[in-house]
Amino acid sequence: MSKTVEFFFDFGSPASYLAWTQLSRIASEAGAQIVWRPMLLGGVFKASGNQSPVTVPAKGRYMLQDLARFATRYGVAMTFNPYFPINTLVLMRGAAGYLGSERFLPYVQTIFEALWVQQKNLGKPEVVAEVLSAAGFSPAEFEQLVNDEAVKQRLKDNTEEAVKRGAFGAPTFFVGSEMHFGQDRLDFVAEALARSS
Amino acid sequence: MSKTVEFFFDFGSPASYLAWTQLSRIASEAGAQIVWRPMLLGGVFKASGNQSPVTVPAKGRYMLQDLARFATRYGVAMTFNPYFPINTLVLMRGAAGYLGSERFLPYVQTIFEALWVQQKNLGKPEVVAEVLSAAGFSPAEFEQLVNDEAVKQRLKDNTEEAVKRGAFGAPTFFVGSEMHFGQDRLDFVAEALARSS
Repeated sequence: MSKTVEFFFDFGSPASYLAWTQLSRIASEAGAQIVWRPMLLGGVFKASGNQSPVTVPAKGRYMLQDLARFATRYGVAMTFNPYFPINTLVLMRGAAGYLGSERFLPYVQTIFEALWVQQKNLGKPEVVAEVLSAAGFSPAEFEQLVNDEAVKQRLKDNTEEAVKRGAFGAPTFFVGSEMHFGQDRLDFVAEALARSS
Repeated sequence: MSKTVEFFFDFGSPASYLAWTQLSRIASEAGAQIVWRPMLLGGVFKASGNQSPVTVPAKGRYMLQDLARFATRYGVAMTFNPYFPINTLVLMRGAAGYLGSERFLPYVQTIFEALWVQQKNLGKPEVVAEVLSAAGFSPAEFEQLVNDEAVKQRLKDNTEEAVKRGAFGAPTFFVGSEMHFGQDRLDFVAEALARSS
């Protein structure tokens, strides 16, 4: 199986959450594999000169409606997290840390759902520890992982690579060199996978 | 026929052009009427605190690809205008001036196609005059129209109303009080029209 779609995401991006709810199905239908690329959206914004849509109040208000409409279309649960903005650095280091292990997919599911379904305040380390414990993760192991220099570097490298390849927000997808931005471009991603070999 | 979709647009927005190529069909299929709402995008940006996507270089580069992909999907001609940014104030006053007359739709088609198919430099009054003449409009009549105080005020009023109702960019659609932003939300517009009575 050589078809792949790279998925650059940050847990703090509700559009990344929505994309995550759909991407496994899309990849599976295309006979493609997902290459998971955790990155730090704050770093992407800084390097590209972009800003969160919520910095424009009218855009932020519309974005909430728009995301809710897509959640309804997809038939998935989604509630905007009342504690936002939450610094996702440690959470994303966790994703970079579990990457390549069998814990990765359960970790991603746990964090995305804690933020965008269960409305947990994952800006608080004690809440992160509670959420991870409840999902069968060891908070002590997690703590060690997110302080590992190689893990920190992996997240930095992914973020820098995303920017270098043209990303300015999340989620960003690549099918080969073809980039698509936004959960609302999953149809183009599916079309690109259908064309790729 | 009571179903309506309001279309707030600016000729300077390539996404407005793409939406325009599709909207008549969508409205017709829904048995709806288009309520044309010319507005000045620069005024909307200023009032809402938003900026053109091209102010973020990576976003601007991606936007060109993204628009080209939609043009291909829609099967319509589109080439990014090399003279951009072009100040659309006079062109939009023209739209506000012809609004409600039988000249309106031909005018809109002439200007959209001159900008986004024929790559005309409509920042130059002499090019505007040429383009209008070739399409059977009187440049002298146009000149009078765009200097009419009531016409200027109509464009201001539309722009202010758009901002007041939540717009931050173009194109913006309303089906009743339901707002959708972007040519990539025409499917939601069609769904909203299907629900409306």
